[in-house]
Amino acid sequence: MAKDKEKIKNFDPGFGVDYKTRTKRIINKNGSFNIKRHGMRKLVFHSLRSMGNLRFFTVVIITYMLVNLLFAFIYYLSGIEHIVASQTHLNVPDLLMAFFFSMQTFTTVGFGSIFPDDAITNFIAGMEAMTGLLFFAVATGLVYGRFSKPVIGIMSSHNMLVSPFNKNEDGLMFRITGLRPNVLVEVEAKVILAIDVDHSDHVQREYIPLELDTDYVAFLALSWTVVHPINKKSPIYGYSKEDMIRDNAEVLILIRAYDDAYGQHVHMRFSYVPEEIIWGAKFIRNYFTDEEGEIHLNINAIHEYENATLVGSSDV
Amino acid sequence: MAKDKEKIKNFDPGFGVDYKTRTKRIINKNGSFNIKRHGMRKLVFHSLRSMGNLRFFTVVIITYMLVNLLFAFIYYLSGIEHIVASQTHLNVPDLLMAFFFSMQTFTTVGFGSIFPDDAITNFIAGMEAMTGLLFFAVATGLVYGRFSKPVIGIMSSHNMLVSPFNKNEDGLMFRITGLRPNVLVEVEAKVILAIDVDHSDHVQREYIPLELDTDYVAFLALSWTVVHPINKKSPIYGYSKEDMIRDNAEVLILIRAYDDAYGQHVHMRFSYVPEEIIWGAKFIRNYFTDEEGEIHLNINAIHEYENATLVGSSDV
Amino acid sequence: MAKDKEKIKNFDPGFGVDYKTRTKRIINKNGSFNIKRHGMRKLVFHSLRSMGNLRFFTVVIITYMLVNLLFAFIYYLSGIEHIVASQTHLNVPDLLMAFFFSMQTFTTVGFGSIFPDDAITNFIAGMEAMTGLLFFAVATGLVYGRFSKPVIGIMSSHNMLVSPFNKNEDGLMFRITGLRPNVLVEVEAKVILAIDVDHSDHVQREYIPLELDTDYVAFLALSWTVVHPINKKSPIYGYSKEDMIRDNAEVLILIRAYDDAYGQHVHMRFSYVPEEIIWGAKFIRNYFTDEEGEIHLNINAIHEYENATLVGSSDV
Amino acid sequence: MAKDKEKIKNFDPGFGVDYKTRTKRIINKNGSFNIKRHGMRKLVFHSLRSMGNLRFFTVVIITYMLVNLLFAFIYYLSGIEHIVASQTHLNVPDLLMAFFFSMQTFTTVGFGSIFPDDAITNFIAGMEAMTGLLFFAVATGLVYGRFSKPVIGIMSSHNMLVSPFNKNEDGLMFRITGLRPNVLVEVEAKVILAIDVDHSDHVQREYIPLELDTDYVAFLALSWTVVHPINKKSPIYGYSKEDMIRDNAEVLILIRAYDDAYGQHVHMRFSYVPEEIIWGAKFIRNYFTDEEGEIHLNINAIHEYENATLVGSSDV
Repeated sequence: MAKDKEKIKNFDPGFGVDYKTRTKRIINKNGSFNIKRHGMRKLVFHSLRSMGNLRFFTVVIITYMLVNLLFAFIYYLSGIEHIVASQTHLNVPDLLMAFFFSMQTFTTVGFGSIFPDDAITNFIAGMEAMTGLLFFAVATGLVYGRFSKPVIGIMSSHNMLVSPFNKNEDGLMFRITGLRPNVLVEVEAKVILAIDVDHSDHVQREYIPLELDTDYVAFLALSWTVVHPINKKSPIYGYSKEDMIRDNAEVLILIRAYDDAYGQHVHMRFSYVPEEIIWGAKFIRNYFTDEEGEIHLNINAIHEYENATLVGSSDV
Repeated sequence: MAKDKEKIKNFDPGFGVDYKTRTKRIINKNGSFNIKRHGMRKLVFHSLRSMGNLRFFTVVIITYMLVNLLFAFIYYLSGIEHIVASQTHLNVPDLLMAFFFSMQTFTTVGFGSIFPDDAITNFIAGMEAMTGLLFFAVATGLVYGRFSKPVIGIMSSHNMLVSPFNKNEDGLMFRITGLRPNVLVEVEAKVILAIDVDHSDHVQREYIPLELDTDYVAFLALSWTVVHPINKKSPIYGYSKEDMIRDNAEVLILIRAYDDAYGQHVHMRFSYVPEEIIWGAKFIRNYFTDEEGEIHLNINAIHEYENATLVGSSDV
Repeated sequence: MAKDKEKIKNFDPGFGVDYKTRTKRIINKNGSFNIKRHGMRKLVFHSLRSMGNLRFFTVVIITYMLVNLLFAFIYYLSGIEHIVASQTHLNVPDLLMAFFFSMQTFTTVGFGSIFPDDAITNFIAGMEAMTGLLFFAVATGLVYGRFSKPVIGIMSSHNMLVSPFNKNEDGLMFRITGLRPNVLVEVEAKVILAIDVDHSDHVQREYIPLELDTDYVAFLALSWTVVHPINKKSPIYGYSKEDMIRDNAEVLILIRAYDDAYGQHVHMRFSYVPEEIIWGAKFIRNYFTDEEGEIHLNINAIHEYENATLVGSSDV
Repeated sequence: MAKDKEKIKNFDPGFGVDYKTRTKRIINKNGSFNIKRHGMRKLVFHSLRSMGNLRFFTVVIITYMLVNLLFAFIYYLSGIEHIVASQTHLNVPDLLMAFFFSMQTFTTVGFGSIFPDDAITNFIAGMEAMTGLLFFAVATGLVYGRFSKPVIGIMSSHNMLVSPFNKNEDGLMFRITGLRPNVLVEVEAKVILAIDVDHSDHVQREYIPLELDTDYVAFLALSWTVVHPINKKSPIYGYSKEDMIRDNAEVLILIRAYDDAYGQHVHMRFSYVPEEIIWGAKFIRNYFTDEEGEIHLNINAIHEYENATLVGSSDV
C-alpha cells in the first residue's frame, strides 16, 4: 500500500491531519467524537432539549420548587398577614402558608381557601400567576422541542467483516438496519479509512475514501449490507489485520438518510477499529420468506456472522 | 426479454434480491411494505404522533382518568379528612370526594368548594397542579406534533394501463393528482419493475428501472400521466400480461414532491401488480375548459379509462 | 418563430398541453392557479392554518361559545339545582347560570362563587375542565402552526419590460426584491413562455423555457433584475407584442429561495400576460449610495421604469 | 491583475455592480448587510421571534398589564358594584379592585375572594378568561418559535492571513470553528473578492470568486482553515495590501452547513476588509493530543497567529 499512497489526494473530513502523537479512536462507540472542545458556549435551551427525559423533568420540578420558594419569601417580606386562610383550620408557619399560597397562584389553581386581602399582595399574586403561565409556556415549548427532534433509528452491526464477495475479490462490509417504525428513504453511505503515518517528530493522519459497490438505497426497509470490494483498485488491496493495527487504522462510516415521518435529514456516524474487524467471516442473512410469501426481518440478528473462506484479495 | 437481462446492472432499492420462495407484493395497497420487522423499538411519542385522532384523544382521556384516580388514592392515604367541602351538602364517599378534588386540582380549575386544610394535603395539591400543567404541556406538544406532519395528498389511478402512446409505440402509464389544496411542486417519479427469476434452490428478485418520457413536473396542478414508452430500448418490449404473471412482476412507483404549505419533502410509494394492469385501454382526460377559458379538473375521474387499440410494441 | 418551434422539445410544467378552447391566464395575479379542482379533500387543520388572523380567532371564539352552550345544556339536563351560587345575589335564569358556570370551568378560572354540589355535576365539571385544556392545547398548536409557516416576502415588478440589454440585443426582464427583514439566500429563477397553437379541433399549449442571463443570486439583498437576452438563439427573437397577443402568450415565472430565518425553502409563482409587458422601457435603478458610502434600497420603487430605445432584436 | 480582469466573467452575488460612489463594507462585523432597505413590511410575529429574550419578555409583561387595564375599565364601566370582595377587608379604590379581579380572571387563577355577581360581569369574565388563555397560547407559540430557530454557532478568526502555504505559493486564509455543542455537518465555504473599479462618472463593483484548496468538510469537529492558494492562476497573484486598499477590496465569506441537532441548513456571512488582512503571518494550531491520545481543541485560540515569512507569490 505504501507505494500507492502518493497517488491518493489527501483530504481531511474535519478531524485534523497533523498530530504530535497517535490518537485514540476518533469516533467513539456511542457516536460522539473523541475531541474535547474547550471554550464552548452552551445554550441553556439546547441543554434542556438534548438531556434525558428523567433529568429534564427533574430540572423542571426543581425550578418550580425554587420559584415558589422565592415567591413565598416575597409574600413573607411584603406582609404575610395579608395572606388569609378562610374557612379552614390550616395551622402552619407563616412561610409555609406563603409557600402553599404561591403554589396555588403559580399553577393558577387558585382554590381561594387561601387568598390575598390587600392591594400589594393582590398585585404580586397577579404577577405570579402570569409568571406561572409563562413558565409553563416555556415548558411546553421545551417539551415540543424535544419531541420534534428525530431519534436516529439506525442500528449497525457490531463488527465489520472481510468476506468473500465476488468471484475474484473479497469485500470489507458492515450491515445497517432501521430500528424504528419510521421509514428511512434516500439512504447514502460514505466509508473513509483513517490511518496514521509516523514521522520522526509528528504523526500525520491520512483519510482515504473507500469506494462502495453501492452507496445508495432508496429505502431502508430490510437490512443493507454496505460493501467495499477489495480488488486491485482498492487502497487496501493486500492489506492485513496486522497492517491495520500498525497504522492505527479506523474505518469511519457516515450515513445520511431522510426520515419521512419527521421530514428531516438524519446523519449518523460510527467507526470500526481493527479489533472490531473480522477477517474470514460472512453475515448470516437476517430476512426470510414464510410459506405465504410474507417477508420477515429479524432486526436483532443483524450482528450475526459465520466463518467463511476468503478468496484472497486481502491479506496476501 | 431474457437475453437482454444480462445487460442490465442489477440493483436493489432496499427490498432484498435473494429469497427462498416467491414473495407477496412488496408494497401493499395502503402504501406499507410487506415486511414484518421483528425486534423493532417503538417510541411512545412516535406512536402517539401517528395514531388516528379518535384513538389519540381516547388515550389522553383515559390517562387523565387514571392519573386522577392515582392522586385520589394518594389523598385518601395521606389523610382524607383534610379534604374539606365547604358551603356544600356534597355527600359522597371519601374516595369520590378525593377524586373530584383531584380533578379540580389537576386541571387547575380549583373552585375552592373543596379545598385542602392541612400542610401535607396542600403540598400534594401544589404538586398535582404542576403535574397537571406538565401533562397538558405534553398534550399540547403532541397535538402540534400531529398537526405539523404533512398528510400526503396524492391520489393515484387504480390501474396502470398499456395504451397507444406515440406513432410507433405503446406506453405503460398511470396517473396521479393532488388531493388537497396544498400545492405540490418539484414532483419527481421513479418507476421500477421487480420480477422474480426462479433458480433450483432460490428465487432471485431483480429490479429494473423503467425510463420515463418525463420524470418531473414543476407543479402537480392538474393530473400528471407518467409514461414509460414501450419501444425497442424498453426492457418490457414485447412483454405480455402472461409474462408479467409468470415473473411475479410488480411495478414499484416512487413519488417525491415538495409540499409548499409545510416546507417539507413528501415521499409516496405504491405499486401495480399484473392484475391491476390493463392492456389496450387509455385514460379519459379529466380536465376541460369552460366557455370562459377557466380550467376544471375532476379529481375523482382520475381512475377512468376507455378501450383503445394498441400499436403493438408490447405483447408481440 | 414558427419554423424554430419543431426544434424545441415540448414539455409540460404541470398545466396541461391539450385543450378544447383557449384558456384564461394560468397563474392569477394573486399567485393562485386558474384551475378549479373538483373533488378536493380539505383538511380542517389545513384550513385553520391558512385562513386569515381575524377569521381564525372568530372561529375559535364561536367554537368556544358553542361548546360552553353545549355544556350548559348538559348541566341543565343532569340537574341544574346542583349548580349552587354562594355568597352572591346572582339572580339569573337557570340556563344562564349553567352557562356562566361552564365558562368558569372550561377556562379553569373556577372562581368558586358558583360551584357544583353533587357527584354527577362534579364529574361533568372535571371532564369539562379537561376538555377546556385540550381545546386550548389544540388552539396553541394551531397558533404555532400559523406562525411557523414562512410568509413569502418577495415583491415583483408590476410589469415585464423589453429593454436594451447588451450592445446588440434587447432583453425581456422583470425585477424582484425582498419585502421582509428575512434574508433570502440561494435564489433561483425559471422563466417559461406558454403559448397557444390553434388546431382545427383543439388548442395545443406549448411551454418554452427562456434562458436567463443569470438564473441565480446568492442573496436577495438588493433588487434582482432577471433578464432573458433576446438574441438569435432566443425563441422570441423577432417576436412582437402582437405575436404575443395572437398566441395568447403568458410568461410564467418560478422563484425558489431559502428563507434563512425559517430554515425552509420558499417557492413563488407569478406570470405576465402581453398587456403587462412593455416594449421599449427600462427600469429606473432603485438603489443608491449616500455620501457616507451607505447603500439605500427603495423597495417600493421596484415598479418604476422610463422609456428607452430598443436595439431591435425583438419586434423586427 | 488588470490585464486578467477581462477574462473573468463578472457576476453579482446580489449586492449590485454599479454605484455612483464607493461604498462602505458590504457585510458589517455583526453579519448584517450594509444596506438600508426603505419600504420594508415588518411582521409583528417576525419581530417578536427575532428580538432578544429580555426585550421579548418585557413586551409580553407590558402587554399583559395593558390588557388587564383595559378589562379593568370595561368592568368599571359595566357596573363596578357587581365585582364583590367576600370574606375580606380589601379596601382599595374601585378601579384597582377591578384590575385585581381582571388579573385573577385573565390568568384563570380565580381565587374567588373577588367574584362577579351579575349576568353581564359573569359574561365579561368568561370572555376575559378565554382571552387570557389565547394570549398565553400565542405566547407559547412565540416562545417555541424562538427556540426552534437554530442559533448559528460558528466562530471565525478576527483576521484573514496571507501565510506560506505550499512549497512555491502563499495562501490567503481564515479559520472557523463550531462554538456550540451542536454538530455541524456538510460544511461548505465560498470566498468572493469584491473590488471597486473607478470610472469617470460611476464606480463599478466587481465580484471575483476565489478558488479554494478545499471548499467542503464533512464535519466541523475541529477548526477548519479555509485557504485560497495564491498561485499563478489566482486573480490576486502579485496583489499587495496597498492594491487592496486602493481597490476598496472586501473579501466576502459565505458558509453553509447542516445543523444536525435542528435538522436545518444554516447560513453565515462575514467579510474581511484590507485592515483585517495580515501579510506574513500564520495561524497557531489550536488543537493538540494529550498523553492518552485524546484530542483537545481550544476554541478561543482560533484568532491566534504568529509571524511567518512569505514564499512571495503575493505582493511581488
